[in-house]
Order: sequence, then structure tokens, then C-alpha cells
Amino acid sequence: MPQNVTQKLIASHLLEGTMREGESIALKIDQTLTQDATGTMVMLELEAMGLERARTEVSVQYVDHNLLQTDFKNADDHLFLQSACRRFGIWFSRPGNGVSHPVHMEHFGKPGRTLLGSDSHSCAAGSMGMLAIGAGGLEVALAIAGEPFHVRMPRIVGVRLTGRLPDWVSAKDVILEMLRRYDVSGGVGKIFEYYGDGLEGLSAMDRHVIANMGAELGATTSVFPADHVLRAFLASRGREEDWSELLADPAADYDEEIEIDLATLVPLIACPSSPGNVVPVSEVAGRPVHQCVVGSSANPGLRDFAIVAMMLEQHGVHADVSLDVNPTSRQILENLAALGYLGTLVHRGARIHQAGCGGCIGMGEAPATESISLRTMPRNFPGRSGTKEDKVYLCSPETAAAAAITGVITDPRTLGFPYPQFKEPERYLLNTEALAPPAEDGRLVALIKGPNIASLPEFDPLPEALAGPVLIKTGDNVSTDEIMPAGAKVLPLRSNIPEISKFTFYQLDESYYERAMQLKGGASFIVGGDNYGQGSSREHAALAPRYLGVRAVLAKSFARIHWQNLCNFGIVPLTFDKDADYEAIQPGDQLTMPGIREEIQRGESVTVVNATQGSTFTMRHAMTPRQVQMVLAGSIIKMSRGSPQA
Amino acid sequence: MPQNVTQKLIASHLLEGTMREGESIALKIDQTLTQDATGTMVMLELEAMGLERARTEVSVQYVDHNLLQTDFKNADDHLFLQSACRRFGIWFSRPGNGVSHPVHMEHFGKPGRTLLGSDSHSCAAGSMGMLAIGAGGLEVALAIAGEPFHVRMPRIVGVRLTGRLPDWVSAKDVILEMLRRYDVSGGVGKIFEYYGDGLEGLSAMDRHVIANMGAELGATTSVFPADHVLRAFLASRGREEDWSELLADPAADYDEEIEIDLATLVPLIACPSSPGNVVPVSEVAGRPVHQCVVGSSANPGLRDFAIVAMMLEQHGVHADVSLDVNPTSRQILENLAALGYLGTLVHRGARIHQAGCGGCIGMGEAPATESISLRTMPRNFPGRSGTKEDKVYLCSPETAAAAAITGVITDPRTLGFPYPQFKEPERYLLNTEALAPPAEDGRLVALIKGPNIASLPEFDPLPEALAGPVLIKTGDNVSTDEIMPAGAKVLPLRSNIPEISKFTFYQLDESYYERAMQLKGGASFIVGGDNYGQGSSREHAALAPRYLGVRAVLAKSFARIHWQNLCNFGIVPLTFDKDADYEAIQPGDQLTMPGIREEIQRGESVTVVNATQGSTFTMRHAMTPRQVQMVLAGSIIKMSRGSPQA
Repeated sequence: MPQNVTQKLIASHLLEGTMREGESIALKIDQTLTQDATGTMVMLELEAMGLERARTEVSVQYVDHNLLQTDFKNADDHLFLQSACRRFGIWFSRPGNGVSHPVHMEHFGKPGRTLLGSDSHSCAAGSMGMLAIGAGGLEVALAIAGEPFHVRMPRIVGVRLTGRLPDWVSAKDVILEMLRRYDVSGGVGKIFEYYGDGLEGLSAMDRHVIANMGAELGATTSVFPADHVLRAFLASRGREEDWSELLADPAADYDEEIEIDLATLVPLIACPSSPGNVVPVSEVAGRPVHQCVVGSSANPGLRDFAIVAMMLEQHGVHADVSLDVNPTSRQILENLAALGYLGTLVHRGARIHQAGCGGCIGMGEAPATESISLRTMPRNFPGRSGTKEDKVYLCSPETAAAAAITGVITDPRTLGFPYPQFKEPERYLLNTEALAPPAEDGRLVALIKGPNIASLPEFDPLPEALAGPVLIKTGDNVSTDEIMPAGAKVLPLRSNIPEISKFTFYQLDESYYERAMQLKGGASFIVGGDNYGQGSSREHAALAPRYLGVRAVLAKSFARIHWQNLCNFGIVPLTFDKDADYEAIQPGDQLTMPGIREEIQRGESVTVVNATQGSTFTMRHAMTPRQVQMVLAGSIIKMSRGSPQA
Repeated sequence: MPQNVTQKLIASHLLEGTMREGESIALKIDQTLTQDATGTMVMLELEAMGLERARTEVSVQYVDHNLLQTDFKNADDHLFLQSACRRFGIWFSRPGNGVSHPVHMEHFGKPGRTLLGSDSHSCAAGSMGMLAIGAGGLEVALAIAGEPFHVRMPRIVGVRLTGRLPDWVSAKDVILEMLRRYDVSGGVGKIFEYYGDGLEGLSAMDRHVIANMGAELGATTSVFPADHVLRAFLASRGREEDWSELLADPAADYDEEIEIDLATLVPLIACPSSPGNVVPVSEVAGRPVHQCVVGSSANPGLRDFAIVAMMLEQHGVHADVSLDVNPTSRQILENLAALGYLGTLVHRGARIHQAGCGGCIGMGEAPATESISLRTMPRNFPGRSGTKEDKVYLCSPETAAAAAITGVITDPRTLGFPYPQFKEPERYLLNTEALAPPAEDGRLVALIKGPNIASLPEFDPLPEALAGPVLIKTGDNVSTDEIMPAGAKVLPLRSNIPEISKFTFYQLDESYYERAMQLKGGASFIVGGDNYGQGSSREHAALAPRYLGVRAVLAKSFARIHWQNLCNFGIVPLTFDKDADYEAIQPGDQLTMPGIREEIQRGESVTVVNATQGSTFTMRHAMTPRQVQMVLAGSIIKMSRGSPQA
């Protein structure tokens, strides 16, 4: 039977289950990726498991999120991660070496392999014929320990690309078009596989742009074939031997098919404060801009910086604009310098930041109050920039550079000069100085733990019944940035659950922490809308609420990674049967789930009594038997403690 | 009568007084320099004065301290400063354009001129035959308004340089040798004028290194002649027409003379936690190093980065070291890129930060707990790095790079390869894109004030008598970093006195703020040792204590700029007559100064009654009649309100 690329990838890694949409399957994981914001927890988890050495083909720990080092905490975390990599046989990409996704693609990604990453944009490696999935840190820890990854078999959507992109329109506009069509939850439970002759015009890094922001669609991942374009990419990085062809069979089909004619696309922009608020740039042209930021995993390639430099060759940065450039890796920075693009950017007025995520996760570059910031980044959730009342727009490098020149949002097609022609270098300068290979034998290496690195709290089993108040009720599409913010104040606390929990729901309700503490360890509940927990994979968005007493989240629907994170840490994810039940419930209501422990083992229904409103209703859970076991045990750690060593 | 360079500079700008050591003189100010950490206050002060337009030849506002933008505050301050520059006719050096001192030297400094800067390292411009003095923001505001600068005529020390520096020894080692001889207060009340044939071997930027860290000696400033070396420097930046010769007359003499034979110097290093703890590098060689930081106003030149790049050409950065590079300006960054040095630094593993002060004032780059950081910066006061228990050493770029290669403190002479030969380019690439000239007419420009920008508090006149407790008693050499820390948490509050005052004495006693608030506006006192208030010029170290009720500081002696700042904001600076009086006083003692208002007008003595100890003693003040007037009025603003417009 003919297979598409996704089916080939899954079939070759299938350990349990069958490839029927919605069925629980277990996959062998070849590679893992962790970054520092989630990786310190992963390393603490590996320590708790007593792992001897990583059992994957390749595991890499990146340091890209927390590079500001405003006090000892980040620097301590870097030392801890380095020691843990030596201890567990993991590659260490040193601070300032660059953003995990493009660095992984340039140095480690390999067609035909699976990748599990504790970062929601790990799906970017789908650009190289990989099955690359973002997950919570604990699942990545288990994968490093050689355990399979459990997921529901997604629906495979074929995206047929035809035609060529017009001048001034680039890969970012393709994924913005997808977001215009699907919004931020239209991809839940799906894999988008791109095919068709439109692929010819998209470089491997262009495909990275599209695959990366598949995360914003809520998709499980995105997949591109491993074709001659990828071969050229690997060859230009001296890695042609890592290439192998992986194409869909000629007669392969998809569960669902759509088409995008690239030639019809125009410059698009996502308005504040959701990646799904997409409109043509021309619709919002003329609004004054204070900041333009270029970089991030959503536009990481040499081209994405070079095009900005070429546009600035004859034009300074507008006096009222701060043009911030975040090189995505030092390899890209070195090539930008060698080719003269960096000199142009510096000469024309850009601020060059160190290689890393930077402002994308609110580590610096926060915009001024009430001012507009245009970014080539993947997300513009409220407050993610570091400024609470921000106005962040997402766009292509062309659109960002156009605004940097004019000082207002500008359709780049109206600039009045010809579209610069960029040519990929055939060979890149290679930069591997800051990639430390795994030690031969790390068994005697001691972990270096600074004073801010705290062990994981204990997680007690699910009781027979639950009772407690609804501490917060949210609307739709609440992101993990709103549940547990990142940014310069909070991220340095990532290795310390008691400390970081003080910022839980800080964006939505500053009193949440205090109200939770007043319960003195008693249970409480969260009520959410649709697509609850979208965005970053950070497990702190489950760990911190759990630490504060949350035992169940009642929502209309969940984002995939967060749903799994809730199960991992023993929080029951329940979905409303009827919208009216969501409407009826009020913040502060006292809920009881009198038989929850027995009910989740018996079936899908859970009875909820709202003592305040005097009502009783039924909710559903979609947990697999394995997930039920982890919730009953209190956490996946309790469930599997010792098992990786068994 | 033959004159030295200092005398020529003073004589040509003398408005009041005579050039006798210790006498109060008033000087005409030609140029001013403000940076963002002190400049927002300066602009608020100009607003309070109702200034129409700057009355200097050149005034420049730099943004170099607060570039991290971890929330809206810094970005708001940048907008405010930009609007204020347009309003008052001041040059604006945009965020990321670089550190004030080297940028000022490259674009604005002119031999024969006076410069007043609201940054303690403003003395760096002494490298170009200028009389360049650091002062509190309020004095700079008055200078911008055309008022003279008042200072006591310093003692002029001639430093005769002979010989040539050996391989691996550079300008930083010259100033470290001065610090070894004079320590951090040996320069108080002095100007160091460098002369002799040793100058031949020191470029203008080398001289900047030496003049800059004259601040660490406590000196009023340092002076170099304007000779053919400076002419070559200006010519290489396309500014030869700004050069004019300024040399000491052949028979000129000095109040005091010393000599340094450059040929005898060895690599030196200042150990934690004072710039005066200087020893030969060989004495501390072998200690493991976690971080090396290159950059800052103390080693800002192209050469200082190029030498590191050349040393790294054959050697990667050690696996356990983070090599952090802070380009001092985008002009230097652009030239580093064009000459290939930047490529080498990136290739070998350096982290390239945006152009600015960065870790020098604790804005990022904080070292890990208990780990050693080697820095080419000017200061290593406790906690200034952002890590409370830090171990910061100060050294030359050569010594920093040697440790980056080996992973331990290393005398660079022992590296075993030849000293790289750097040659200054004859012409630099010029970068002026981010220097915005003053507007033609700014009278209608509105100041843009974000929500964190608060007006100055009111300052009430000095009462007849003072009574209150001693809230803190410190040892010697307490720096303004300890009185009012900078760093990533505190600097963003610089435009908001009530908020920033919460961090007063945070390094020494976290309870200070709370104890001060319990007095509910009542008066209190600070007791300090020798050289109280050394270091940064920040007037917040006077403003915040004053806001919290401090009306007098009792110390063994004061650093010059802080002493003036105390007077400016109505705090009486009193010195102990006898060490025994300092010893007898205890924290918490209740003091009374029953006739202070009358006493400071009548003479130098002030009677202090220690009610707790049951003793009475006499203290002295050294205020000029003008300073007495500002203290009586409550602040210099109250004294001079309206006068600049009169």
C-alpha cells in the first residue's frame, strides 16, 4: 500500500498500536532536544530516575532561552546543565551558540529519524523529513532513558503547494496563510504534510519557517519530504552523508487535502495578540512602529537576515525605530559577518544581540508602553514580550525591514525599489567550537547545583474524592504564557518550583498565588475554555498549579502538549459535555467530584457537584489507560519510578 | 610663567577664583555628556528649570547602561530621552550605539575643551587634552543651562612615563600600577597629568584606558597632552580639523611628581572586591575561571578586542569558560567585522553582546555563584556584577584572553606563543547612523513620559535643629554601588525615586528601607568611614537616602562627586574630627544637632549630641558658602530655581 512521508516515518518507529487516526500509539525516539528553560527539569528528572547514560542516537541540550544573566541563577543553571550533560552522555550546546531548532537542523537533524523535544517548536525539524514532536520535559526525559513516546495517531493533512512565491513574499507568509485559514487550534490532532511542485522554490530553511510555526496551528507536527533541496542544504554544511531520500509514494494519499497556490500570496501579518489574527499587511499599513525585531526559530536562516541587510543597503533605520537583530546561531552570525551582511546591518543602525531566543520569550527587547513592535517571531500572546500591555505583530523579515525603514507598518511591495536577490552560499563556514560532545563515561561526574536549583516536590496519589473552589475561570485559547509566564523575571526561577509558582496566572490574575496559598494545601480547580494551554511546551504550567493544589482542570478543550503535561503531573484534564455547563460555573464556586478516582478507571465520565450553584453535571476525560495510571499514582514519575532501570 | 596642560585648560576656562590648590573655582563648561542611568534625572531637572535650549557647544545624551529591556521601563526611558533631546537641543546617541566615553572620544571630544559628564568615568576624555570631569546629574543639568561648574582647585600630580611597554603588557597594566601605588582614594583632590617620552608608545585609546580608570583612584580627573598621537587618532576618524596642539610648556612643573618606567611593568590584576587590590597576575595564577568579559569604557578600543581575537586565532575558548564580548560601540563593531576579528571571535566561541556597558554595571553577564570572573572593566565592587557573592578580577584584555584559553588565571607571558602584533588602521569605517543631531527648534516638542517616569520629590529646607537615629554605620570605601545598587533589577527604576529608594543600602542591609519608612518622614543619619561614596557618579545615592529622611552623613572622609551630590540634595556632609568619635558611635544611636542651621553658616564646626551614649562631640564641614546655601535651601534646585532663565 502506498504511503506518504508521515506514514513511512511512523511505520518505521511504531512499537505499539496501529496507524488508525485517534488510536494510541507508541513510537521509538531516535533523537531528543532540550533547551535550558525546560532542560533543567529534565536533568533533575533523569537524576531522579537514576539514569546511567542516554539511550538515544543523539540527545542535545541547548542553552538559548536564558542568556541575560541578571543575577547568579542563569549562570548557575548553565553550569548545572553542563555537568548534567557530562554525567548523562548528552551533547551540550553552550550559552550563546544559538537557538535549538536551527542549530539542531544544521548539525544533528537527519531524514528518516524521530525527534522528541521539550520545546513546542521542536516540530521545526519536520523540515528535514523527520517526525519531530514537541512534548513536556518529563516525556523527553523518558525518551532519553530509552522509553517510547505515547501519542494518539494524528489525522494526516496533505498540503499541496503549487506555483512560486512572488517578490516580497516569503516562507513566513505561507505559514501565516495557514494560520489565517486554521487559526490557533485548527491543527489540533493533525499532522500537516507538505508536498507538490511548489516545494521546489522553498529552501530547507524556508521549510523550517513553515514547520516551526505549525506549533501555532496546534498541530502535532508538520512534515516535509527529504528531497534534493534538503540534500543541498546538508551538503552546504558538510553533511551530505547524513542525507537519505524520503519521499511520499507516487500514489500516496492523505486523510484530508488542501492546496495553496504560492503565486497568489501577499505579505501577511498577525495582529495583536494571537498568531491567528492574520490580515494582509496592506490592511494595517501606516500605523507607527517603535520596534522591529528580526530572528528567532520562526525566521532563523541566513537569508532572513541577509534580506534585511540588502533592504537596508541604501536606507538607514528610521529615527523612531529600534531595529533589533537576534542572530539565531553563531554559525549564522559568522557567515553573516564573512559575507558582509553583518557590517551593513551594524552600519545602518541595527542593534545586534547575542545569538539566542532573546525577545521571543521576553528575555529583553521588551517594547515601550503602548507602542507597536513588529517581529519575525512565532508568537504574540499577551505580555509574552515582557511588556504587559504590548502590541506585537508577527510578520516576515521583508515586512519587518520595510517598517524599520519607513517607521510605519508598510507593505514591502510599496517600497519602490527592486526586490533584492539572495543566493544561498554553496558552502557555509562551519562553527562547532561551542558544541561539546558527550563524555566517554560520565558515571563519576557530580552534578553542580547552585542555591536556586531545588529538587522536585512530591506528588501524592489522586484521592477517592476531590473538593475545593474554582480559583480561576478563563476564556478560550489561554496560552501557557498566561498560565506560567516566561520572561526575564520568571524564567530564571525555572529550576525552583516553589519560587516560580508565585507567578502562576500572573498575566490574568495577580491574586491567584495568594488565594491558592490560603487553601494551605487543599485542592482547587481551574476552569478553561477552548484550546486551553496552547503555546510553549513548558511543564511548569502544569507543575506550578499542581504545587499550588490544582487537581483537575475543567475545559472545553485542551492543547495537546499541555494536556499531556497535566496527566504527567497528576492533574485530571476534564472536558465539558455541554457549553452550558461551562457558562454556569463561576469563579469561587465550590466543586465536589465525589467518586473521581473510581470513575476515571471505570469509563470516560466524571460527576461534578457544584455546591455553590446547587447543580450536578457530567464531564468527560479522554485519557488513555496509561495516562489514567499516572494520574492515579500522582505523577508519571511515581508511576514509572525505577522502571527505566528495570 | 610656564604652565602644564592642566593649568592651561583651567586658566582658559576660569570664571571665578584663582588656581591655588584647595581654593573654590568656577569653570566654563564647553561640552556635556549624560548617559541613560543618570540622564533621565538630568532631563527632568532641565524640565524643572524651564530651560529653553542647551547653552553648551556640544551636549550629548547616550543610551548605554540600560539596554536589556526586561519590561517596558527601559524602552519608555529611551523614548523619553529621545523626546527630551529634541526638546532641549541635545545630540541623541541611540540605544546600542555604544558606551558614552569611547563614542564621545571618537565623535565629539576636542582638545582644549572642558567636558562635564554625569558619569564618573567622564574623565576618560582627559586622553585628548581635555579637562573632563564626572559630576552629579544636577550639576551637569546646570552646565547644560550655561552655568559654571564649581570645584576645589585640585593638586596637580605629574606622572612621568618613560620607556616602552614589554610584550603582553598594555595600558590597563599602567593604570593598575597606579592603583597598586595609590589605592582607591589616593587620588582624591588631585589631577594626574601624564607626560614624558613613554607617551610615544601609547595610542589615544591606550591613554583613554588610563584616564578612564583615574576615577578608581578617586582623582578629580587625568590629563594627557594633545600631541601628534592624538592628531593621528582624529585623522583616522576623519576629524583632523578638530585637532589642535596642547602641550605643557617646556619648563612647566607640578605640585608633585612621580615616575613610571613602562619597561618594568608586568601583567597586573585587581583581586576581589576593590580596584585597588592589585597584585601581579603570576601571584594568583592557576585559579579556575568560569567567565571572561572583554569590553567597557576601561578597555574600549579596537585594539582591545583585536588582541583577543589574534590570541584566539589558534585556540578555542576553554570548555568551562564563557567568553563574553561587549563591543563598546557600533563603529568599533563594524570595524571589527570588516577586519575579520569579529569572525574569529565568533568562530572561536565568544558570545557577542550588543554594544554598550552590559555586565560592567550588572546589566546581564552576572557570574555563577562562587565562580571567578575576569573582566577588562573598571570596577569590581561587591555585588556590582549582579551576583551578590561575586569574585570579580580586573585585568587587561591579554590577561582575560589568556584565562579564556586555559580555563585558569594565567600570566599571558607564559602562554608559549609570540605576542600578536596589532596595527591601528589608518582610516576607520565611520558609523554615525545612530547619532541624531539636535533639532533646529525644539520648543514645541512634548516630552514622552511613560508610567514609570515620576517627577522629582520636594526637598524642604534644613531645619534649625536635627534629631534622629543612626540608621546604618559602614566601614571604609563604601561605594555608591553599595548605597544605591545598579544592575538589572534596580536601574530600570532610575526615573522613579520612590520606587528606587526601596533598594537603598540593599547590598549592606536589606532592612534599611523598612527601618527608614518606620520613621514616617522623620530625620535620620548615616555614619560612614573613609572615602565614603566612591565609584559611580549616580545622584540616586544621595536622592534616595534624602527621600528616606537622611539629613546628614557623618564620615571620616568623602569621595568628591558623592560629597557634591549630598550638598546638591540638601544632605549635610560632616567629617569626624577624631577617629575615636567614629568608633564610639553605634547603629541605632539617637543623635541631635541642636544648632546645625546656624552653625554651618557661622563656621566649620557642628555640635553633635549622642543621647544614647551620653556624649557630645564636634564635627567639621568643608562646604563652600555656595554649598551651604544649597543645603539651607533644601537642594540646589530650590536654591537656583529660575536662576538659569534669569
